Amino acid sequence: MQVKTLAELGEGESLRLTIGRLITGDNVLVGPGDDAAVVSSPDGRFVVTTDTMIEDHDFKLEWSTGFDLGFKAVASNVSDVAAMGAKPTALVVAIALPSTTPISWLEDFADGLNAGIRELAPDASVVGGDLAMSEKVFISVTAHGDLEGREPVLRSGAKVGDVLAVAGTLGKAAAGLALLQRGDSSASAFDELVGIQRRPMPPVSLGVQAALNGATAMLDISDGLVKDASRIAKASGVSINLDKSALQGFEAVIEQAALRLEVSGMDWVLFGGEDHSLLATFPEGSELPKGFKVIGRVVEQNEHLVVLDNSSIVIRGWDSIRG
Amino acid sequence: MQVKTLAELGEGESLRLTIGRLITGDNVLVGPGDDAAVVSSPDGRFVVTTDTMIEDHDFKLEWSTGFDLGFKAVASNVSDVAAMGAKPTALVVAIALPSTTPISWLEDFADGLNAGIRELAPDASVVGGDLAMSEKVFISVTAHGDLEGREPVLRSGAKVGDVLAVAGTLGKAAAGLALLQRGDSSASAFDELVGIQRRPMPPVSLGVQAALNGATAMLDISDGLVKDASRIAKASGVSINLDKSALQGFEAVIEQAALRLEVSGMDWVLFGGEDHSLLATFPEGSELPKGFKVIGRVVEQNEHLVVLDNSSIVIRGWDSIRG
Repeated sequence: MQVKTLAELGEGESLRLTIGRLITGDNVLVGPGDDAAVVSSPDGRFVVTTDTMIEDHDFKLEWSTGFDLGFKAVASNVSDVAAMGAKPTALVVAIALPSTTPISWLEDFADGLNAGIRELAPDASVVGGDLAMSEKVFISVTAHGDLEGREPVLRSGAKVGDVLAVAGTLGKAAAGLALLQRGDSSASAFDELVGIQRRPMPPVSLGVQAALNGATAMLDISDGLVKDASRIAKASGVSINLDKSALQGFEAVIEQAALRLEVSGMDWVLFGGEDHSLLATFPEGSELPKGFKVIGRVVEQNEHLVVLDNSSIVIRGWDSIRG
Repeated sequence: MQVKTLAELGEGESLRLTIGRLITGDNVLVGPGDDAAVVSSPDGRFVVTTDTMIEDHDFKLEWSTGFDLGFKAVASNVSDVAAMGAKPTALVVAIALPSTTPISWLEDFADGLNAGIRELAPDASVVGGDLAMSEKVFISVTAHGDLEGREPVLRSGAKVGDVLAVAGTLGKAAAGLALLQRGDSSASAFDELVGIQRRPMPPVSLGVQAALNGATAMLDISDGLVKDASRIAKASGVSINLDKSALQGFEAVIEQAALRLEVSGMDWVLFGGEDHSLLATFPEGSELPKGFKVIGRVVEQNEHLVVLDNSSIVIRGWDSIRG
């Protein structure tokens, strides 16, 4: 069978084949195909966030399929919507890729978008997009959400005495990346960890649940637990004390991979990015939503934004410029 | 003075310096700095569109400053919001650029965003963004608008007998591009045309005005008059007859540049992209908003989507894949 490239099909036909695969929900009043889409926002406000993925900076084509990248683009964006306590409603997707790309790759990407939405944000739809050409693959997604009448959960609301809790994985995505970077048979021995790196599974619906249960601050962990916890601390004018014993369960599930690569599993837990788990603070004594686990406590602001068992810890993690 | 690059400053400081320059309006309930922004949408719906600009495909750094590109990124997106009959309210901006870029370039880009908003969409704000690294500059903007209770003006509503009218320039951006491509002293002799290419001035507020005056269909001309008129014709199940004599005024203002480059000015008018002017249909006898000029008529669907003085014309224009 002859494989058609984007250059052979042109923009119109390539878009038609791709858009035809996308699911559209009831909250989409005008879908793809006009100058703009129209989306319902019954709350009278909407939540909006954007995130970009660039070949060789954020992913490698030999490690991830089009499907993986579509899934991950959804995951990394809807987790930011969830972190505001909102329900994801709509996404727009801009993608640039070489004109020699087979249309099947783009169709696979669209199927990955659909799968990510189905798994993580079943009330959301892709409502628009843009297709352009570039030497390297570039994916930019903007995601929207509805607050359903609730106040947004910001980074700045943590109070001294609150408990710090996490929902989702810690360190698994970093372990998966390290295994892929090793490049030998390591990756195939740890399917689950590599899977989380390729297709993160943030606990999106727990964002709304956390808001309902009174979360005082929340964010999604994209750059590492310590770095992102320091952001809550800074925005809230407090410090955060992480409880190492509570993190040992997260370390245990990546221990075999850490031994294989002769690195510290606890470092992945503390500093690894891309899990897109939810980190939230709740008033002492709150009932936490099922899926959240207490890993620390909010304390009076001191000279360290984040400490581990009351001891200082270097704040490091992902920086989109320096890596 | 030492020039700081993005790599030297890191992500946090680069973003802080850039975001600090952006204007934020009253409709922004939560601005940049959290996982997501929260924007007011009193209408209960929001309009959303996205557009991408890629170095060497859509612009060249030797022809456009950071300021120019910020301005153009706003213009090309808010014109799509206007083409729905909506008022632009909020933008998110993702930009990727080499880590060796001086921070002053990014600050200039932010100033261009501000200027574009002030000139074209004074009720809008940049509410969020993303900064990443890549070898080539990549700019992806998503723009939002409010319909203020009106129905959106789609491409599909044109009726036989409607007049076709345009607001804004036709062919000037294409003339400006051709002058820049010539690369001799031609460009400097035609400041205004090159200026439109660098900083398009779509008549954004006329989008709402057209909706109020009963426009039956509307879009923004990004890929050329004939190609974009054919999109209205196709979506509406009609054909469009362009009136060549009505287009001669547009040809006249670019005639000197066309003579200089020994090309057809009418070709720029018919097929040139990037003016981001508004093309709309109105019922016969409507009062047109000041700024719209009649250039044709909607006729019964025939074998040609678009004709010029009832004669067939090849539909060509910009294709984001093939150029």
